[in-house]
Order: sequence, then structure tokens, then C-alpha cells
Amino acid sequence: MKIKLLVVGKTSNSHLSSLINDYSKRINYYMKFEIIMINNVKLKKINPLELKKIEGNSLLKKINKKDLVFLLDEKGDSYSSIQFSELIEKKTITKSKDLIFVIGGAYGFSSDLYDRCNSKISFSKMTTSHQLIRLFVAEQLYRAFTIINNNPYHNN
Amino acid sequence: MKIKLLVVGKTSNSHLSSLINDYSKRINYYMKFEIIMINNVKLKKINPLELKKIEGNSLLKKINKKDLVFLLDEKGDSYSSIQFSELIEKKTITKSKDLIFVIGGAYGFSSDLYDRCNSKISFSKMTTSHQLIRLFVAEQLYRAFTIINNNPYHNN
Repeated sequence: MKIKLLVVGKTSNSHLSSLINDYSKRINYYMKFEIIMINNVKLKKINPLELKKIEGNSLLKKINKKDLVFLLDEKGDSYSSIQFSELIEKKTITKSKDLIFVIGGAYGFSSDLYDRCNSKISFSKMTTSHQLIRLFVAEQLYRAFTIINNNPYHNN
Repeated sequence: MKIKLLVVGKTSNSHLSSLINDYSKRINYYMKFEIIMINNVKLKKINPLELKKIEGNSLLKKINKKDLVFLLDEKGDSYSSIQFSELIEKKTITKSKDLIFVIGGAYGFSSDLYDRCNSKISFSKMTTSHQLIRLFVAEQLYRAFTIINNNPYHNN
């Protein structure tokens, strides 16, 4: 099994990219982890609803039938880091299904993605850039595995 | 008036440092903003309580009597980005007092700092590294000013 993070558009800042890669490597020490990027839609005259639909379809193509899908959504359930680690532990224990975390584009998710997802998770009540949140998610996944495995993770 | 972010220990990663500097510059477009760092305590045989006390005293020395002090604390009040921008607007409108946001060290805050603070703010129920949270605070401060000034800030 794997954990996948689906994102819209490449990480635009090389410093941010470096930090995310660093956490990705650390997560891979515990479990296969990859970030899958779908391209930004390049059409100029497009409204947010159409954009979300196109992005949503591209994201759905990356999701398999058996996958467990969590959308990163401000209106989702909030977890402490301990609770999040318990969720990860519970969902990875059978090792039969991939876990997919999805970060939407600038306008959020299509209704099809909301229909497909298994759960919605909120990392904060605050709105964060859909680029920065990648780092936040990677850090929490790494933190979750250090909690599950009772490994020290100093706040460095 | 100014907004200050007080932190414990230098930002250890140069990529993280670059990202924080970028947001600092953007915040400075709207209001004087500076990050003030106190040194990590280098004593080896020290318990968390003593450490918090020493760090707390160093942090308190950076705070003036009139300053409004907000501690970044998991048990604090949570805000949406809009609510946070309303708080910033309200607190900066008189321009008479500096706003100080304090990020504690690895073990949190001393009781003296809790006594001194005006309010506690939680950015997330999740625990984040006291290094990474600097970036999220800087981003939310920048976001707050774009909201207050009705400037576009695309999630880039």
C-alpha cells in the first residue's frame, strides 16, 4: 500500500519544493509515499465551476476504485496530531487500500470529488495557500508516523 | 506601530528562512513587521520547566508594557482567515500599540508568559514544528492585510 498526495499544479517555489521533498523522504522511511500532480488548466476564459470540474476529472483519473480518499477541506473534521496519527494507523493497518489525500486547486473541489471521497479533513479553520498546505500535510504525515512508531521527533 | 513575531532559536533551514523572508517583505508593504529571535538555551542538564522559564524571561524582555501580546497556543481561540484579519484590523486601527505574536520553544510557554499575554491564538488543533509555524503565521498575517485592503491574493 501507499500514501499519495494529489495536488493541482506544480509546486511553484523551489524552496517550498525542497522542504516538501525533505518530508517526503522522511515519510518514505515508514511507508511508500508519493506526490502526484495534475496540471493546471491553462484555458483563459473559464469560470471557477468549469475549472473545478476539469480539475476534478483529472484528479479522479488518479484515484482507483479501492482507494480511501480524504479531501483537505476547511469544512472537514479537525484532528489533533495524535488523532490524525490514530486515523493513519487505523487506515493503514490492513495494508489493502491506498490512502489518498487530495488538495484542491485555488477554487476547491468539484461536486464529483465530494461524492467520491470517503472523508473530509480540515487542517485549520484558516485558509492557506494550496501550495503551502502541501508542506503542512507532509509534515503532519511524517509526524503521524513518528507518533505511531513512538519515535522521537523534536520540533526542529 | 509594528507587528513583531517573537521566536525561540534561529530558523534552522535556509529554504524555510527564504520563504519566511518573502512573506515578511510582503507584510512590510502594509505595516512594519519584524521577526525577533531569542537564542536557544544551550544548557545540557535542564528540565523542560526550567527551560521554559529561561526562554520565557528572554521573551518577556522583548515585550514592552503597552504591547498587545498574542501567544500561538494549541489551546487558544481558533479563527478563520477572515476573523483573523478582523482581529488585526481592530487591533491596528488605533496605531498606538505594537502587536506581538509569540511562538514558544519546543516545550511551550512559561507561566509568566501566560500571565502576561492578552490572548491565545490557535492556528490549528494539530501540533506543528515551532519552526514551520513561523511560515504559517507570516502567511496568515500577509493574507490578513490583503483581506483588510481588499487586495487580490491568489493562492499561488
